[in-house]
Amino acid sequence: MSRIDVTEKIITAKVLQGLKWADVADRVGLSKEWVTAACLGQMTLTAEQAAIVGEIFGLSAEDQKWLQVVPYKGSLPTAVPTDPLIYRFYELVNVYGSTFKELIHEEFGDGIMSAIDFKMDLQREPDPKGDRVSITMSGKFLPYKTY
Amino acid sequence: MSRIDVTEKIITAKVLQGLKWADVADRVGLSKEWVTAACLGQMTLTAEQAAIVGEIFGLSAEDQKWLQVVPYKGSLPTAVPTDPLIYRFYELVNVYGSTFKELIHEEFGDGIMSAIDFKMDLQREPDPKGDRVSITMSGKFLPYKTY
Amino acid sequence: MSRIDVTEKIITAKVLQGLKWADVADRVGLSKEWVTAACLGQMTLTAEQAAIVGEIFGLSAEDQKWLQVVPYKGSLPTAVPTDPLIYRFYELVNVYGSTFKELIHEEFGDGIMSAIDFKMDLQREPDPKGDRVSITMSGKFLPYKTY
Amino acid sequence: MSRIDVTEKIITAKVLQGLKWADVADRVGLSKEWVTAACLGQMTLTAEQAAIVGEIFGLSAEDQKWLQVVPYKGSLPTAVPTDPLIYRFYELVNVYGSTFKELIHEEFGDGIMSAIDFKMDLQREPDPKGDRVSITMSGKFLPYKTY
Amino acid sequence: MSRIDVTEKIITAKVLQGLKWADVADRVGLSKEWVTAACLGQMTLTAEQAAIVGEIFGLSAEDQKWLQVVPYKGSLPTAVPTDPLIYRFYELVNVYGSTFKELIHEEFGDGIMSAIDFKMDLQREPDPKGDRVSITMSGKFLPYKTY
Amino acid sequence: MSRIDVTEKIITAKVLQGLKWADVADRVGLSKEWVTAACLGQMTLTAEQAAIVGEIFGLSAEDQKWLQVVPYKGSLPTAVPTDPLIYRFYELVNVYGSTFKELIHEEFGDGIMSAIDFKMDLQREPDPKGDRVSITMSGKFLPYKTY
Amino acid sequence: MSRIDVTEKIITAKVLQGLKWADVADRVGLSKEWVTAACLGQMTLTAEQAAIVGEIFGLSAEDQKWLQVVPYKGSLPTAVPTDPLIYRFYELVNVYGSTFKELIHEEFGDGIMSAIDFKMDLQREPDPKGDRVSITMSGKFLPYKTY
Amino acid sequence: MSRIDVTEKIITAKVLQGLKWADVADRVGLSKEWVTAACLGQMTLTAEQAAIVGEIFGLSAEDQKWLQVVPYKGSLPTAVPTDPLIYRFYELVNVYGSTFKELIHEEFGDGIMSAIDFKMDLQREPDPKGDRVSITMSGKFLPYKTY
Amino acid sequence: MSRIDVTEKIITAKVLQGLKWADVADRVGLSKEWVTAACLGQMTLTAEQAAIVGEIFGLSAEDQKWLQVVPYKGSLPTAVPTDPLIYRFYELVNVYGSTFKELIHEEFGDGIMSAIDFKMDLQREPDPKGDRVSITMSGKFLPYKTY
Amino acid sequence: MSRIDVTEKIITAKVLQGLKWADVADRVGLSKEWVTAACLGQMTLTAEQAAIVGEIFGLSAEDQKWLQVVPYKGSLPTAVPTDPLIYRFYELVNVYGSTFKELIHEEFGDGIMSAIDFKMDLQREPDPKGDRVSITMSGKFLPYKTY
Repeated sequence: MSRIDVTEKIITAKVLQGLKWADVADRVGLSKEWVTAACLGQMTLTAEQAAIVGEIFGLSAEDQKWLQVVPYKGSLPTAVPTDPLIYRFYELVNVYGSTFKELIHEEFGDGIMSAIDFKMDLQREPDPKGDRVSITMSGKFLPYKTY
Repeated sequence: MSRIDVTEKIITAKVLQGLKWADVADRVGLSKEWVTAACLGQMTLTAEQAAIVGEIFGLSAEDQKWLQVVPYKGSLPTAVPTDPLIYRFYELVNVYGSTFKELIHEEFGDGIMSAIDFKMDLQREPDPKGDRVSITMSGKFLPYKTY
Repeated sequence: MSRIDVTEKIITAKVLQGLKWADVADRVGLSKEWVTAACLGQMTLTAEQAAIVGEIFGLSAEDQKWLQVVPYKGSLPTAVPTDPLIYRFYELVNVYGSTFKELIHEEFGDGIMSAIDFKMDLQREPDPKGDRVSITMSGKFLPYKTY
Repeated sequence: MSRIDVTEKIITAKVLQGLKWADVADRVGLSKEWVTAACLGQMTLTAEQAAIVGEIFGLSAEDQKWLQVVPYKGSLPTAVPTDPLIYRFYELVNVYGSTFKELIHEEFGDGIMSAIDFKMDLQREPDPKGDRVSITMSGKFLPYKTY
Repeated sequence: MSRIDVTEKIITAKVLQGLKWADVADRVGLSKEWVTAACLGQMTLTAEQAAIVGEIFGLSAEDQKWLQVVPYKGSLPTAVPTDPLIYRFYELVNVYGSTFKELIHEEFGDGIMSAIDFKMDLQREPDPKGDRVSITMSGKFLPYKTY
Repeated sequence: MSRIDVTEKIITAKVLQGLKWADVADRVGLSKEWVTAACLGQMTLTAEQAAIVGEIFGLSAEDQKWLQVVPYKGSLPTAVPTDPLIYRFYELVNVYGSTFKELIHEEFGDGIMSAIDFKMDLQREPDPKGDRVSITMSGKFLPYKTY
Repeated sequence: MSRIDVTEKIITAKVLQGLKWADVADRVGLSKEWVTAACLGQMTLTAEQAAIVGEIFGLSAEDQKWLQVVPYKGSLPTAVPTDPLIYRFYELVNVYGSTFKELIHEEFGDGIMSAIDFKMDLQREPDPKGDRVSITMSGKFLPYKTY
Repeated sequence: MSRIDVTEKIITAKVLQGLKWADVADRVGLSKEWVTAACLGQMTLTAEQAAIVGEIFGLSAEDQKWLQVVPYKGSLPTAVPTDPLIYRFYELVNVYGSTFKELIHEEFGDGIMSAIDFKMDLQREPDPKGDRVSITMSGKFLPYKTY
Repeated sequence: MSRIDVTEKIITAKVLQGLKWADVADRVGLSKEWVTAACLGQMTLTAEQAAIVGEIFGLSAEDQKWLQVVPYKGSLPTAVPTDPLIYRFYELVNVYGSTFKELIHEEFGDGIMSAIDFKMDLQREPDPKGDRVSITMSGKFLPYKTY
Repeated sequence: MSRIDVTEKIITAKVLQGLKWADVADRVGLSKEWVTAACLGQMTLTAEQAAIVGEIFGLSAEDQKWLQVVPYKGSLPTAVPTDPLIYRFYELVNVYGSTFKELIHEEFGDGIMSAIDFKMDLQREPDPKGDRVSITMSGKFLPYKTY
C-alpha cells in the first residue's frame, strides 16, 4: 500500500460524491491550491488536517497515516505532459523560460525563485470578451552566494 | 542566416552595452515581458518595433526583417531544462500540474487556459524575510465545445 | 477506479455487441467524431449524454459519473505512435509541419489554429481509383497579442 | 553541400524579398501546400519547376539540381514539436489519434489513409466570432490484404 | 479485456500444445507470414478465419470477436528492440536505410514502398556453408504526386 | 577530416554530375546494393575499389584512404527514422518483428539471421496494378550454442 | 502465462532454497555462464535440460515447456542500466567501445565479433592486493563480404 | 581547442600514414588496448608518453599538453550504439547483464568489478571453423561495506 | 515475489507504526545512512541484520531471505528525478559535475571517487538564519592505471 | 559570441599554461569549489572577480563582461553522464536518492536541501589503505509551507 492508493481513493470518492476542492479547502481552513495539491499526493498533512480530509473522503486510520508522510512528488505521467491544459503550462515554460530567466536576473541578480517557499492563487477574471484564468505566483528569491 | 543569428546579435549587444530589458521595453512602449520574449526570438515584431529594437542593438535592415517573421518558438535546449531558475518553473508544472487541472476545470469546466491570448507581469514583492518574485499570469479560458 | 476503466468497459462492450460509433453518435445526437473521442476518454459528457452512453454500453451509475469528469487527455501509448494508421498522421505533422506553419502565418499572422475551439469531419470520398479518406478540420485562429 | 543549404537559401531570400508562398505557387502552377512543402525541402521538383523556383529565389544551377533530388524528409527538429502552432497538430494526433483509427476502420476496414497519395487544402474560413483555419485532407485508403 | 489478452492466450496454447505456425497457416489457408502476424495481434481476421483459429487454440466466442477487430499495431516493447534476432532487422534498417532510399528513388522516383499493400515470404535456403534465411518482400511502389 | 566528409563529397558529386548508383556499381563490378552502401559510408573498400570510386567522383588520394578504413556504421540521424521511405522499413520491423522471430525460430531453432554474412537484391517487379518493389534478403542462420 | 513467470519462479525458488548457480550448472552438465543465462530467461533449453532445471526448482510440466521456447531476450529494465555492477560493463562499452572497434578491425578487417557463436568464462583471480574478477570472452569473427 | 581536436588529428594522421595501433603501442611500451584508448581520447598520458605519441602523429607541443589532461570520457555518440561491432558488446551486456550480476555476487558477495582498476587483452584465437576474437578482462572486485 | 515486495512491506510497516530510521539503525548497530539504504532495497544484509530488521518490521522468514540477496540497485523511477528533494542532488551533479571532475583530477590525477568503498554522514547543522543539512561523503580514490 | 566561448578560452589557457584551480581561487580570494564552477560557466562574477580571472587567463574586456552575466547553467552534455568520475555522483543519487529523502524528511519534515544557498568543500582524506576523497556539502533546509 502507498500514498498513491490513498490519492486514488480520494479522487474516486470526490467523483462519486460530487465534492468540490474549494469546499474541501474551506473545511481544512487553507487555500484551495495547497489543499488540492495535498489531496493529489504532493503535500504533507498534519494529523489534524489528515483527520478532516479523512472524514470528508471516508479514509481509514491507516490512510490518514499515509497523508502525514512526505510523498514522492511529481504528478505527471510523462516528462512532456500530453494533457492539453497541463501542456499549456509546459509551453509557457518553453516559450517564456528564457524571459523568466532574463527578467528575474535583471531585477534580483543570480539566483532562483523558490518553488518551495512558494504560494499560488488561481482566480476567475471576468472579461466581456470571455472570462480569463488569473494565476498569481509568489516565490521567495534565493540568491546564489559566493563562499 | 536565420532568426537565431539575430537573437544572438541582440544578446551579445546587450551584454557588451550593459543594457536593461526594462529600458528596451520602455523605448518599444510595451511590457518588459513581451519585449524580452520578442528579443529572445519568441515573438513577432512590427516594422516600427523592429526599427526601434534595431536602433538599440545596432541591427541591419536585413536583421530587422527577420524580427518581423514569425519565429519557430521554444527557447530551451532540452525537454527538461537544466538551468536551476528555469527548472523551478518546470518543477511547478510537475508538482502542481494536476492541481492546475483540477481547479481550472472546477471553476470553468472542460477547456484550457490559453497560452496565446495570454499576458504576464513579473514584479519584485518586498518582504522583510527576503524579497519575493511575484508573477501574475492571465490567459483566456477556452472551452471545449461539442459538435 | 478511474476513467480508463470506463473506457475499457466501453470498448469491450462495443466489440462484444458489434456496435458502430456512427450509431452511438446518432443516439447521443452529436457528430461521430466528438462522440467517439468522448467514449475513448478524451472529452467530457453531460449527465444526459452520459446516461445515453451508459444505457448503450451497460454502464453503472458510478461509471456514468466518471464520464462527466474532465479526463486526463492523450490517447496514445508512446510519443511517436507505432500503429501504422495513427503514425501516418504523425508523419503528416513531421513532413508538413513547417508548411502548416508558413501558410497559416502567411494568411493570419502570428498565432495558432486552436485545437480546443475545433471541430472535425471525417468522410468517405468515392474515387474510381480507390476511395479516399477525407478529413476536414476547422479551428479558430488565435492571434498572439502584444501587451 | 546539401538540400538543407538550398532550403536555407530559399527561406532567407523569401524573408529579405518579402515574397509570399501563394505567389510562388502561382508561378509554379501548383497548390500553395505542395509548393511550400517542396521549397521547405520535403518534396522533389522537376527540372522545369526547379528553374522557376530558382529564378524566384536566385538559386544557382547547382542549387536547382539539389531541388530535383529526393530529400531526406522530416521538417521538425524534435520528436515532440516545441513550436505552439505545430504542437497543436501533434496534440490533435495525441487526443484524436484513437478516434481517427476507430472511425476510419469502421468505414473502411483494416488499412490506413495514405500520407503519400495525399493532398491538402488550407483556407481561411470567415466567422463573425473570429476567422477559422480550415484544412481539408484527402488521402487514398489503402487496405491491408491477406496473402 | 483486450486483443492483447487473446494474443497471450494464443501464445500460451501454442507453447503448451506444441503447435507450429506453418500448420496453423495451412488450416487457415493463407501464408504462414500473414497468419503468424495475425495470431500475434497485428492483423484482422474474418469471422471464418477467427473460427478456425479459435478452434485450434481453444478460444471463446468473445475471444474470436476480438480477432475481428482491427488491433493497435506494433509488436515490440521498445523503440530499439533488445532481442538479438529482431535487432538484426533494425540494424539492417540502420545500416542499409539510406541505401534502400537511394536505390528505390533511383528506380522509381519520389515515393515509398508500401508496408500495407505488402507481402512477405520467409524460407530456408540450403547452403553447404550453413543454411541461410531468405526473405522476399514485395510492396507496391506509391509515388508522391504534385497537386 | 573523416569518412563523413568523403560521403558528403560523393553525394554532392553524384547530384551535380547526375550519376546513377547502378552505373557506379557496374564500374566497381559488384552489386548496386553493396556499392551504394559503401559509397554512403557503411562498407569498407579495397584500394582497387577505392580507386575506381575515386575516379568516378573525383576524390583525392586522401579521400580514397578514408574509403579503405572501416567506418562507424549507422546511416540514420534518429533512432526512429523520420523519412517516410525509411520509416516504412522500421514499421515492418515493428509490425512483423515478432513474426520474423517466431518463424525463424520455428524453422531453425534459437539463433539469428546474420546481418553481416548477408546480401540483398532490390528489383522492380512489374505489376499491372502498379509496379512493386521487390527485396530479397539472404542472411546466414547463426545458432546459439550451449557451452 | 509467459517465460517471465517461469524466470520469477526460478529466482524465488533459488532465494528460498539457498541454491548456487554453479551447482545448478553441474547438474545440467554445462557451464555456469550458459545455465545462469538460461535460467534467467535468455537461452533455450532442451527437454532434458528443462527436466533437470524443473526438478531443481520445482517447476511444473507447463513451466518446463516454456523453458524450451526461444525467449524474447534482453535482461535489463532500462537502456542504460542503473545497477552499479551491470553499469560498469556498460561503462566499459562506452569508454572502450571505439578501442574494441579499432583493434578488432586492425586484426581482422571489417566485420564483428559474434555475440551468438560466443562463449564466456568468469573466474576469481586471486591477487594479494584484492582478488579480481576475470572474464574471458570468445566470439567467432564474422567478416562483412562483398557481393 | 580541446582534446577532441587532438583525437581527430591522431585518427586522420593514422589513416593517411597507414599506421597500426599495435606499432604505436610498441613504441609507447604499453599494451595496445590502453594505448589505443588513450589515443582515442579516453586515457591520460604522461609527458613522456605524449611526446612519443606526438612524434608518431606529428602533434604540436600544445596538442601534447592536451594529451596530459584528464579527458571527459565516453567514446560513443549515442546511448545505444549503432555500429554493429560495438552494438554486439552492448547486446552482451543486455543479454548477459543479469548473468554477470548473479555469478559475480555468488562468488564475491555484494560489490562490483572495477572498470577503473581494470585491464584487458584482445587476441586472435585461431580456429579451424573460423578464427575467433578472444577478450580477457580483469577488474578488481570492490565490495560494498557496511558503516 | 521479490525484494521490491519486501521493501514495500518495510515502508508500509514503518508508516503504520510510526518508526524512525535512526532507531532502526540503532538496533542494527550501524549508521542510519547504510541501514536506510538497505531497508529501501539498495544494500545486502547478513542473516543477523535481516533477523533484527525482520523483527522490527514483522517480516517472515522468507522476507528475511530476500534481504540477504544482493538487490538490483537504483531507487528512482526516472532518469531525471521528479521529486524536488532528490532533484536538488541531481542538479548539484549537473551544475557542479565538471567542478567535481576538475578538482578531484587536480588533487589525485586520473581516476574516480569510489561509490562502492564509500560512506556518508547526514547531520543537522544548526544555524541562526535557518538550520542546514550537512552531508559528508567519503569515497576511496581509485586511479586509472596503465598496462 | 557567448559565455561558452569564454569558458573554452579559460580551459584552453589553463591547459596550455599548466595552471591549478586552487591557485586561481587563491588569487580570487574565494573557495576553489566556487571559483572552479564560476570559471566553468556556472556562476556569476563581479567586475573585480572578472578582472582577476581575466588577467590570469588573458581574457579581453568583452570576455570579462560575459563573466558578469548570469549563465545558462548545467555543465553536462547528457542527462545521464558518460564520464566515469561524474557518473559515480549520478550513481550515488540513484542508489542513495531515496535514503537522502527519508533521512532529511525524518530530521526536518517536508522540504528540501537548498542547492542555491549551498556550499561545498572537497578535500583529500589520507588513509593508509588508499587516500579518500572527502566532500562536505552544506545546504539550507527549506520547508514547504501551508498557505
